[in-house]
Amino acid sequence: MLTFDFRNCMEDGVGRDHGLCEQDLNDAQPLLDRALTQLKRWHEDGVAGFLDLPSMNGVIDGISKEALRVRGDFENLVVLGIGGSALGLRCLAGALLHPFHNLLDREARGGLPRLFVCDNVDPDTFISLLDTLDLKKTCFNVISKSGGTTETQAQLALVLERLHVLLGDGWRNNVIVTTDPTAGELRKYVNAEKLKSLSVPSNVGGRFSVLSAVGLFPAACMGIDIFGLREGALLVTKTASSDDITLNAPLRLAATHYLLDHKRGKKISVMFPYCDGLSLFADWYVQLWAESLGKEGKGTTPLKAIGATDQHSQLQLFMEGPNDKVLTFLGVREPRTSRQKMTLKNLPANFNYLNGKTLGDVLHAEQHATADALRQAKRPNLTITLPTLNARSLGSLLMTFEIATAFAGALYDRSPFDQPGVELSKVLTKKILSAS
Amino acid sequence: MLTFDFRNCMEDGVGRDHGLCEQDLNDAQPLLDRALTQLKRWHEDGVAGFLDLPSMNGVIDGISKEALRVRGDFENLVVLGIGGSALGLRCLAGALLHPFHNLLDREARGGLPRLFVCDNVDPDTFISLLDTLDLKKTCFNVISKSGGTTETQAQLALVLERLHVLLGDGWRNNVIVTTDPTAGELRKYVNAEKLKSLSVPSNVGGRFSVLSAVGLFPAACMGIDIFGLREGALLVTKTASSDDITLNAPLRLAATHYLLDHKRGKKISVMFPYCDGLSLFADWYVQLWAESLGKEGKGTTPLKAIGATDQHSQLQLFMEGPNDKVLTFLGVREPRTSRQKMTLKNLPANFNYLNGKTLGDVLHAEQHATADALRQAKRPNLTITLPTLNARSLGSLLMTFEIATAFAGALYDRSPFDQPGVELSKVLTKKILSAS
Repeated sequence: MLTFDFRNCMEDGVGRDHGLCEQDLNDAQPLLDRALTQLKRWHEDGVAGFLDLPSMNGVIDGISKEALRVRGDFENLVVLGIGGSALGLRCLAGALLHPFHNLLDREARGGLPRLFVCDNVDPDTFISLLDTLDLKKTCFNVISKSGGTTETQAQLALVLERLHVLLGDGWRNNVIVTTDPTAGELRKYVNAEKLKSLSVPSNVGGRFSVLSAVGLFPAACMGIDIFGLREGALLVTKTASSDDITLNAPLRLAATHYLLDHKRGKKISVMFPYCDGLSLFADWYVQLWAESLGKEGKGTTPLKAIGATDQHSQLQLFMEGPNDKVLTFLGVREPRTSRQKMTLKNLPANFNYLNGKTLGDVLHAEQHATADALRQAKRPNLTITLPTLNARSLGSLLMTFEIATAFAGALYDRSPFDQPGVELSKVLTKKILSAS
Repeated sequence: MLTFDFRNCMEDGVGRDHGLCEQDLNDAQPLLDRALTQLKRWHEDGVAGFLDLPSMNGVIDGISKEALRVRGDFENLVVLGIGGSALGLRCLAGALLHPFHNLLDREARGGLPRLFVCDNVDPDTFISLLDTLDLKKTCFNVISKSGGTTETQAQLALVLERLHVLLGDGWRNNVIVTTDPTAGELRKYVNAEKLKSLSVPSNVGGRFSVLSAVGLFPAACMGIDIFGLREGALLVTKTASSDDITLNAPLRLAATHYLLDHKRGKKISVMFPYCDGLSLFADWYVQLWAESLGKEGKGTTPLKAIGATDQHSQLQLFMEGPNDKVLTFLGVREPRTSRQKMTLKNLPANFNYLNGKTLGDVLHAEQHATADALRQAKRPNLTITLPTLNARSLGSLLMTFEIATAFAGALYDRSPFDQPGVELSKVLTKKILSAS
């Protein structure tokens, strides 16, 4: 289970000007109760479908079966998707695959395909990728909840042109579509061409879809333990109805961020994993937080940092710049294999404090030192610790932040499930392309 | 040459509450003059050595010669460094290598080694990499300006242990050190072991070192045109002494950010390239801006976004969240090869605005649409356009922001060349490791 340490967000840690006191939390209890009621209502009204994903068992068997075919038949899995159709899978793959998976030969990869997540329309990247891969041996998973994503349609058009030439009618074996069960352009296309497809429940938005077929199908193709992900997530959904914030971590996360924004002016939320494998979790969080809460002039700005690397980049600003941030450290207690525990030897005299230590020891020491340095500089921060980085703990972490984000939406008194602000740029894009 | 469009930062674009007016710039002229004088003084005092890097010709021949040896002898180049010792090279490689360089076979790579930049001490990543590579065919470039970087020493200790076993006395061929010309632990080590080494001028700090041996040597090993980088940079240094901001882009960048912070409350600076190849430029910028300016409670917080991807992630917040940001779009006019210009065909009816367009057209349309949508939402933004992404334009871009950052330091009335705030966490790290 995840553990949470909020002490450095409280006045005992960082003082009254920058930390919360028990009174702040007590005063907020009516707000927290309202948030609990709101989330229940959203769930009952069917707009918070992400809460049901860990317990939807019918879907997962179909996913597993189709994934087995892909693992057997293809050298490469290419996912075409953007935003919520890409970030969840990127996070899963970054955390749970070998760090250099695509560079390993097929045997060292355990017979699994290589993975490419294409979430942009930069021609340099996308066309270079198509030129690099053996497309006959490549499965394309096309993901768009709405079926109306310009970028994904543009990618698909280029892919289809090549597959038609290479494979004739056989191209259909190489394409699997993930989209709405009934609506949208991609569903029409699936029906017309009789393509293999998977469904995203209509009431699950892109940024909350990692535990639907959007994230789970390609993850299963890559050998990721999708049952473990769901189990970990389920553990969290069970705790999220308690009105006692000492028992309900997502609610405490939401309350802490909301109160530090409103009462202490902390407008920036830094996600700071001390673990390369959680680097893309931070990107996933940035979308979730920014797109759910940034509305009507409200919301805090999420920011990514990576430890220990960013001690040599952003830490100066975090320590001595404007005191306008709250930082969330993510730590991992145990590395994945004992292989990672080799100790350091024969260091020069100035570095003898490293002798006998593992890299993990160094990383942990830096994480704790940085959290403490920030505390001393009166910069509020909190720490979430994973026992080890695996499917189960990652599932818990994902669901913790999905629920925390929904609670935060309720606290800001605004639905976290829409994104009206992105429409204008889509309209203007169409206008420019239609005119040229 | 780069072109700059500041119109969406001005009141005509985004209104008086969020944009600057000509009067703001005129009133600031004494401040700008002071900044020009200050940069000149820093240069004369020898603390702004980065300004001289593009014209230091002696160094570059040694770099080129040694790089040729590495390209001939090794399959892999692994750089051990963190912060300023890694981010510049990451930026160069991300922009100028094939997007899937490490996956290409040696012939398709043009005989060049694969590149790995190790800027963390996460055991999962680092030990997995050492386990994956054929270390006999791997050259390690160990980079630390001070020679006193804990993370780099820890990495080096693990590498040396393996190289000693594999290569006996021959290990020296596989290690090249880049550090201070005379001072520090690594220089001592170079002298004691008679290792190959390169020097970083003492008056060039890590985050300003990309155009020294720190960035140029490994870049040259990877076949990057280091002369083009320097030429592009040199073009910019020549314009940076003008007191007319319409001629001095770095000064106008600094002034715009400073004034939008002080007079319009824009506390966050978003770097928003519409080009995958400039993704790591944004990371480089984040360090440069954060570590140089985040001091004494001042400085704005830099943030990375990527277009078009982040239209599906952070854009909602940028459009409708707090109006506390200024955004910098980076666009590239022409893709690198005509191969990237294939047109889209056979789109479904709803997407017929895409027919006949290239991916580059789509990306450009999205960039301009997003800038305009932000303008309509009264969010100040500016656009920098590169003619194409190559060594020359990238060199100009890097130097533009180095000088702009130095000017901003002068405007905030604080040296941009130190980082006192990172020391405490280093002290506490040593304490933890020494005690355990």
